[in-house]
Amino acid sequence: MGKQKKEMKKALILISGGQDSTTCLAWAVKKFGRIHGITFDYGQKHRIELKSAKKIAKLMKIPLKVHKINLFKKFSQNSLTHDIKITGGKLPSTFVPGRNLIFLSIAAIYAKQMEITNIITGVCQTDYSGYPDCRDEFIKSLQKTLSLAMDHKFKIHTPLMWLTKSQTVDLIRKHGGLELLKYSHTCYKGVQPACGKCPACKLRLKGFKEAGITDPIKYA
Amino acid sequence: MGKQKKEMKKALILISGGQDSTTCLAWAVKKFGRIHGITFDYGQKHRIELKSAKKIAKLMKIPLKVHKINLFKKFSQNSLTHDIKITGGKLPSTFVPGRNLIFLSIAAIYAKQMEITNIITGVCQTDYSGYPDCRDEFIKSLQKTLSLAMDHKFKIHTPLMWLTKSQTVDLIRKHGGLELLKYSHTCYKGVQPACGKCPACKLRLKGFKEAGITDPIKYA
Repeated sequence: MGKQKKEMKKALILISGGQDSTTCLAWAVKKFGRIHGITFDYGQKHRIELKSAKKIAKLMKIPLKVHKINLFKKFSQNSLTHDIKITGGKLPSTFVPGRNLIFLSIAAIYAKQMEITNIITGVCQTDYSGYPDCRDEFIKSLQKTLSLAMDHKFKIHTPLMWLTKSQTVDLIRKHGGLELLKYSHTCYKGVQPACGKCPACKLRLKGFKEAGITDPIKYA
Repeated sequence: MGKQKKEMKKALILISGGQDSTTCLAWAVKKFGRIHGITFDYGQKHRIELKSAKKIAKLMKIPLKVHKINLFKKFSQNSLTHDIKITGGKLPSTFVPGRNLIFLSIAAIYAKQMEITNIITGVCQTDYSGYPDCRDEFIKSLQKTLSLAMDHKFKIHTPLMWLTKSQTVDLIRKHGGLELLKYSHTCYKGVQPACGKCPACKLRLKGFKEAGITDPIKYA
């Protein structure tokens, strides 16, 4: 097996413990031979999602690195790391400026150390929350920037980029991972059963409804 | 004064405490009305440079944010954060993968919070150390990526990009900042007086020699 082919089979996946990254993981295990995971403890109030990330990684036999970041609580005002009321609009209050930038940059540094070029993330532009760092244009630009930064040809895989939330449900079902979603966490309030009312819960519920499937997690 | 004009006058500068960022600061105070500084405590063995950064910022009356990063010691093997012998070559052992990527990304997040679009860094491609993240192509790509990440039009200023080390000496002299360099720290060994033998000291000494000026710091 050539060096390139072997490297193609390794990947690093960003796992938040939510629906999207869990779906990406179910997709990734079919595509890559050896997968490593990374998750971030960044001061999110719903850090209960880290338990989900660990549980899902364990079930899928993926080694998971938990990395702590003190950046966002310090440098930005947003509803995920501060007690600020969740509001919508063009740029919702739940937008954490630079979050995917930092997550993917750290992932790339970690990947470089392991000689991995493939990075997988569950960002999505279709049914998205209005976060600029979920757009395809950003990811493509970042891929180039990361490669230039370290002289290492990264490929960022975004299997959900152009899927609706309903198609995301279909994708994990197709890969036999629906059962896994029972352990995932999405709710911004950080409660279990999920609140069902925050923007994250609403988006998740919408996808399941449109897919005609019952969400395996409990709602209040 | 229009909003854009006012914003143009604000800038955030990355200050390491070394010769290059000190030179950029002397340049910046002529160009911008209000300057903020940021420096990074990233596990560098020569963290004595932070003292220089603080001293220089204080002398120039620049508020300086010190941000601690636990990333590089954890995710990369290099001579600046680990006890690894300094070696040269195409990619020297002192290269810290992702360092400028992370520094500038954090700076951008901090700048966004302060509604600053101008970021200044002392990277240089001419007489450089072989670090891919000092190249102009990387900086241009990063500028685009940062802007897309946060929907905020960043401009990364790199006044030293195409200068030789000798021209960098000329630049700070021209801006009346030569005296400031007395407080700067460059040596990778983290010693004062500077070792004069590590790649960083050698590059600095070369510039002063070519400029025909005596370096105001002491060497062993």
